[in-house]
Amino acid sequence: MQLISGAAVAEKVLEECRRDIAALAAVGKKPGLAVVLIGDDPASRAYVRSKDKKCRDLGLHSVKLELPASTTQEEVLAHVHALNNDPAIHGILVQSPPPPHIDEAAIVRAIDPAKDVDGFHPVNVAKLALEDPTGFVPCTPLGCQRLLMDAGIETKGANAVVLGRSMIVGKPMALLLMAKGPGGDATVTVAHSRTQDLAFITQKADIIIAAIGRPEFLKAEHVREGAVVIDVGINRVEAPGTEKGYKLVGDVAFEEVAPKCKAITPVPGGVGPMTIAMLMANTIKACKQS
Amino acid sequence: MQLISGAAVAEKVLEECRRDIAALAAVGKKPGLAVVLIGDDPASRAYVRSKDKKCRDLGLHSVKLELPASTTQEEVLAHVHALNNDPAIHGILVQSPPPPHIDEAAIVRAIDPAKDVDGFHPVNVAKLALEDPTGFVPCTPLGCQRLLMDAGIETKGANAVVLGRSMIVGKPMALLLMAKGPGGDATVTVAHSRTQDLAFITQKADIIIAAIGRPEFLKAEHVREGAVVIDVGINRVEAPGTEKGYKLVGDVAFEEVAPKCKAITPVPGGVGPMTIAMLMANTIKACKQS
Repeated sequence: MQLISGAAVAEKVLEECRRDIAALAAVGKKPGLAVVLIGDDPASRAYVRSKDKKCRDLGLHSVKLELPASTTQEEVLAHVHALNNDPAIHGILVQSPPPPHIDEAAIVRAIDPAKDVDGFHPVNVAKLALEDPTGFVPCTPLGCQRLLMDAGIETKGANAVVLGRSMIVGKPMALLLMAKGPGGDATVTVAHSRTQDLAFITQKADIIIAAIGRPEFLKAEHVREGAVVIDVGINRVEAPGTEKGYKLVGDVAFEEVAPKCKAITPVPGGVGPMTIAMLMANTIKACKQS
Repeated sequence: MQLISGAAVAEKVLEECRRDIAALAAVGKKPGLAVVLIGDDPASRAYVRSKDKKCRDLGLHSVKLELPASTTQEEVLAHVHALNNDPAIHGILVQSPPPPHIDEAAIVRAIDPAKDVDGFHPVNVAKLALEDPTGFVPCTPLGCQRLLMDAGIETKGANAVVLGRSMIVGKPMALLLMAKGPGGDATVTVAHSRTQDLAFITQKADIIIAAIGRPEFLKAEHVREGAVVIDVGINRVEAPGTEKGYKLVGDVAFEEVAPKCKAITPVPGGVGPMTIAMLMANTIKACKQS
């Protein structure tokens, strides 16, 4: 069984980023990422902080915009417009979820698609479906694809099952895997909460991408011998007796599934580090294309 | 075995169109469709003629723009811009394929998304993926979904296999079937030319949508007893001894597959009539939303 280390592949991606940043510096360009945080959700604050830190470590220009929870829709839009027009900024990300009075979809649509490094703008959604390589693909599924490719997993002709049909992970993952070319050409099944007899579906899979947000949902009985499992889930579950009182687990019951697998990602240390690495890569791509 | 008559369901859709047209007339509106044909491909001419006739039969305003094969990209774009600005036109369709010197994707992007009744504009591609009901869905997959719903086939929880991954049929069909709600909620697999052991995939399917453009490709061995088969293919094959010298067949070997099916569409008379009916329905929707 091969343990796919997201941390190691992410480090490789970041090394490529460093090379790209050096090459861009040689022509007087410096990629810039702006992260907009509205409100004071602790998890969101932690994410934004780690993105900011990763940017600075790499030598990217990083702008962290922390707005109070009382910020109005119009004020957020005004900030987005200013960032759209700021030539030092190549990537814009509005941390999800914003407070409930904010229309998140409208904010995403206001971001210049050429700076939409999260890949959630409709223009980039369409580019993914249309297999247009100038678009931005959401960081998590892009990271999953990179993990597969880096681990030497052949997707062409493979039976891939994506669990989950969200626009954050499930659908873009499916579109990536069914696209023509390296990392694609898979026969892709999208399963979800309405799927009947999930084990019947997943037992046929060469590759399973689990992105349903249910702790340790995928069991040994769901997986055939020799499958490759990518676990997108990051779920906090109670762990009495530990220092923090909780632990992080994926959507996969790792202990029982891993022994059956040809390859599997752990949680933490799997998909997680890839998401932020692909955000850096997307920001550099945006800078190159600007 | 239930033979799903596309002709009958299309007539029902057109009856709904007539009611909508009458209701729109009562408020002084008349839906208008413009079809742009570049060059003189006989099959394209025939399609455009039948669309124009169907429009007139229904009482839609129909504009048929026949441009010579020598028309330049800029001239086509100028026509599209004029149609975008014409308040009597609610739907614009550029007949595919245009001559090779025309950049078809650029023409599609030039159409006002609110008038893109073919559903090929990136804005509408994204709306389909994002499950935004204000978008336009390509007519053929939309017609297939309607056929399933009208025939009383439950898609929720069904294992649906879409053969083909084009942006005309395969991908939009998959997105429709996996979306939340009636006619969706299926567990969807997209298979294509790179799929290995296709029969292994299709034999598990409750619903098969065949859209690969290969005459009589899907055989009895691919289909389980009780499956529902929607045949999108329209292939011209030689038929020596017949008056025309050819006949139309689908992507499904109908004679051998039909006896195993719970329900199946014929070719011709299946998906074909639905495509044009959904084009009329999309044009009326565009008029309502204008």
